[in-house]
Amino acid sequence: MSTDLSEIGDIPAVWTRRHLLGLEDFSAEELNCILDAAAMFKEATGGCKQKLSVLVGRTCANLFFEASTRTRTSFSLAARRLGADTVDFTATGSSLSKGETFIDTAKNIEAMGVDVVVVRHRTPGTPHLLAQQLDCSVINAGDGAHEHPTQGLLDILTIREHRGNLAGLTVALVGDIAHSRTARSNIWGLRKLGAHVIVCGPSTLVSPLWRELGVEVSHSLDAILPRCDVLNLLRIQFERQSTRPFPSVREYAHLYAMNRERLERAKDDILILAPGPINRGVEVTPDVADGPHSVILEQVTNGLAIRMAVLWLICGAG
Amino acid sequence: MSTDLSEIGDIPAVWTRRHLLGLEDFSAEELNCILDAAAMFKEATGGCKQKLSVLVGRTCANLFFEASTRTRTSFSLAARRLGADTVDFTATGSSLSKGETFIDTAKNIEAMGVDVVVVRHRTPGTPHLLAQQLDCSVINAGDGAHEHPTQGLLDILTIREHRGNLAGLTVALVGDIAHSRTARSNIWGLRKLGAHVIVCGPSTLVSPLWRELGVEVSHSLDAILPRCDVLNLLRIQFERQSTRPFPSVREYAHLYAMNRERLERAKDDILILAPGPINRGVEVTPDVADGPHSVILEQVTNGLAIRMAVLWLICGAG
Amino acid sequence: MSTDLSEIGDIPAVWTRRHLLGLEDFSAEELNCILDAAAMFKEATGGCKQKLSVLVGRTCANLFFEASTRTRTSFSLAARRLGADTVDFTATGSSLSKGETFIDTAKNIEAMGVDVVVVRHRTPGTPHLLAQQLDCSVINAGDGAHEHPTQGLLDILTIREHRGNLAGLTVALVGDIAHSRTARSNIWGLRKLGAHVIVCGPSTLVSPLWRELGVEVSHSLDAILPRCDVLNLLRIQFERQSTRPFPSVREYAHLYAMNRERLERAKDDILILAPGPINRGVEVTPDVADGPHSVILEQVTNGLAIRMAVLWLICGAG
Repeated sequence: MSTDLSEIGDIPAVWTRRHLLGLEDFSAEELNCILDAAAMFKEATGGCKQKLSVLVGRTCANLFFEASTRTRTSFSLAARRLGADTVDFTATGSSLSKGETFIDTAKNIEAMGVDVVVVRHRTPGTPHLLAQQLDCSVINAGDGAHEHPTQGLLDILTIREHRGNLAGLTVALVGDIAHSRTARSNIWGLRKLGAHVIVCGPSTLVSPLWRELGVEVSHSLDAILPRCDVLNLLRIQFERQSTRPFPSVREYAHLYAMNRERLERAKDDILILAPGPINRGVEVTPDVADGPHSVILEQVTNGLAIRMAVLWLICGAG
Repeated sequence: MSTDLSEIGDIPAVWTRRHLLGLEDFSAEELNCILDAAAMFKEATGGCKQKLSVLVGRTCANLFFEASTRTRTSFSLAARRLGADTVDFTATGSSLSKGETFIDTAKNIEAMGVDVVVVRHRTPGTPHLLAQQLDCSVINAGDGAHEHPTQGLLDILTIREHRGNLAGLTVALVGDIAHSRTARSNIWGLRKLGAHVIVCGPSTLVSPLWRELGVEVSHSLDAILPRCDVLNLLRIQFERQSTRPFPSVREYAHLYAMNRERLERAKDDILILAPGPINRGVEVTPDVADGPHSVILEQVTNGLAIRMAVLWLICGAG
Repeated sequence: MSTDLSEIGDIPAVWTRRHLLGLEDFSAEELNCILDAAAMFKEATGGCKQKLSVLVGRTCANLFFEASTRTRTSFSLAARRLGADTVDFTATGSSLSKGETFIDTAKNIEAMGVDVVVVRHRTPGTPHLLAQQLDCSVINAGDGAHEHPTQGLLDILTIREHRGNLAGLTVALVGDIAHSRTARSNIWGLRKLGAHVIVCGPSTLVSPLWRELGVEVSHSLDAILPRCDVLNLLRIQFERQSTRPFPSVREYAHLYAMNRERLERAKDDILILAPGPINRGVEVTPDVADGPHSVILEQVTNGLAIRMAVLWLICGAG
């Protein structure tokens, strides 16, 4: 363990939450509290590589009912970099196949001395239900198409690292807004911090009702492109769609893929984000994904930093 | 690590075993040795939440050939709370699919420096076979419908916590006795400690031959209910039954489910146990499962305590 | 942690590699560097059982795209015995099912602060591709029928422990040479250290082209048996064969299985190796597999020692 507790400060007074269910009701102060803690942990661990001992003796359980590589692993590594133990549950091979209810499974896990449950479930509101039923802390790692707060936070941290401040920036979320939990978390977080948000995509994936969340709605990437400081290219979630929302992938890419030609018409310092896993050639062409404007892999490292910050804040407030 | 080795006493002289295969041949002294150690660990770790370092450098392997959430996780967490490393094997994705024998797989795992193998298998006697073939310690985590000794021990610990002593208590095991490994481990453990045991359920699930184990056999929960200090509601193992042992789940619940109406006819201080995962509305109604007589979630925490005790005793005797 | 850093020496000057992709281009000095380090770690940890702290704060990721019990577990345990954290990825349940490319998955894992990626993939050259694309270290845990360098090294370490020196020994690789990554790694390693290598099996599994690697080719085990110091019985990889390379398993066993009768015609001190998982009765009869000439389980323990050595060397050189 390379750093002891004394190097990490106290939890800021503004932080009083025991759960992270979504960003909708967060204040700007609370958002900055997480972002500042994440930046501190990233710095203190050489880019989230070294271990700390701030959560030694704590146990974090991953309760994932949907396939996930990066989010589940990111939470596990974040917990272990803070010295905590981790334990994984997946839908297969568990007692759910023996007829147990979801809440009973979670209560059983909690009774094993777990401090934090990280939950992903296809049903919106599942983390909120767990937070009501359990005494331990709950973190939403994605509930259906509702929220994915740590994804929103890591996107915002990545932008903040490059621009210093979110206020006044124009951030476009492009693509499959309809099926995206990342979109909502980004919108609530970005707007609280003063950014202007555009949701952009085909009308089958971007309803005018999104305006009710205080964002601009566009169906033409080319029209909004010159104004954008940041593009967040949401992946087309083929696995969530029952009908095809556009005639062909080629048609979608023609209108919405970020490629070299579009990059030339964008601001010189435009940032390209994508929550991944990316469909190369669909939302983004390989040259842009691997090019100098892309911060896609920085987002992954920042995901670790955000999750370390959230685990620390939540466990300290518990 | 919150407690060092000096806070944990020596292993009692009565304990000489290197394996935990079943409770059938245990003495009362040996049972109390495990129960006392479990109570000590639970106390020393704030309810099995903090970490100790008594098994640092040891490795425990889970060899599970049947689906399990709570037992496998409970063993893993128990081992890690004592400072040990853990490694999981499941039937899928392993070299068994390449034609290796079960014993060869186990010997290979042992050759990787494993100290304890925790095994679950649908074939009765598998842990005993492993104990003969391996040099390391073996713990039975359930062998077919034979034994599940740590489940029996955690049930007994939970009763002891509430009643102080098992002697003279009347404990009824209700439900699917025929397919239950928990039943045998409970019977052998409870009787050694002086309890009177009743097995109760439909005649298709409770044979009169159970009397040979020294227990009372009943087919009417209502008849025995007023005499019972403890009910242990075994789950109907639908997944193990090839034919239906009763006309319908509704019919079963009508005769054997523990519900509010039956609770009113029971002793005032009756304890309701269930090994879980529970089928709500089958063996137990939700109001009783979540009510003041239920100790179902305490059983889960006590499962950790029992497994910590067993791992400590077995590794110390090795 | 039973040993501190001071008990482990510095990394030898001959070692400059950051990856272990295959043994083909290794010098004898480099091979001996790994073998010596493995022997040192085995000695320092009581046969690879105790923990060291030389890699505390490092993270090793297993990226396995083929079923594996022993190799994946062996790498995990080796990493943890050195104090490192481990994280597992398997093909199922990962973002590969969402359309992500293999390289993007690996780069995402690296961006989570991983120091070493251990990769198994059915496509030859995959580890080399990863080593080009990633900044972290890469270890080949088997790429198709190409190389499996840690298996070759553990086989060689096992022979060296019994004979002191490889120079002048005659080592026969028997069986399914065509589908074997173990064969190539053994051949390159053994020949560098001065052994004479024979590849032996039916002509459908042993092509005369193997002579280009500097080995003797034989189709008759009985003909070469009297000359052999070591037999390495490669498993018949039924799962990799699209057509049957011999009329029946019984026919194969008749000609190539190592059994008691053949043992009587072999050198008195012949060593029997098998990389496992073994098909009992196919490559080797149970009496020979479990007999005094067999070092099959020593190979498993030496696998841990080799992997500890490789992880230490690679991380130290990084």
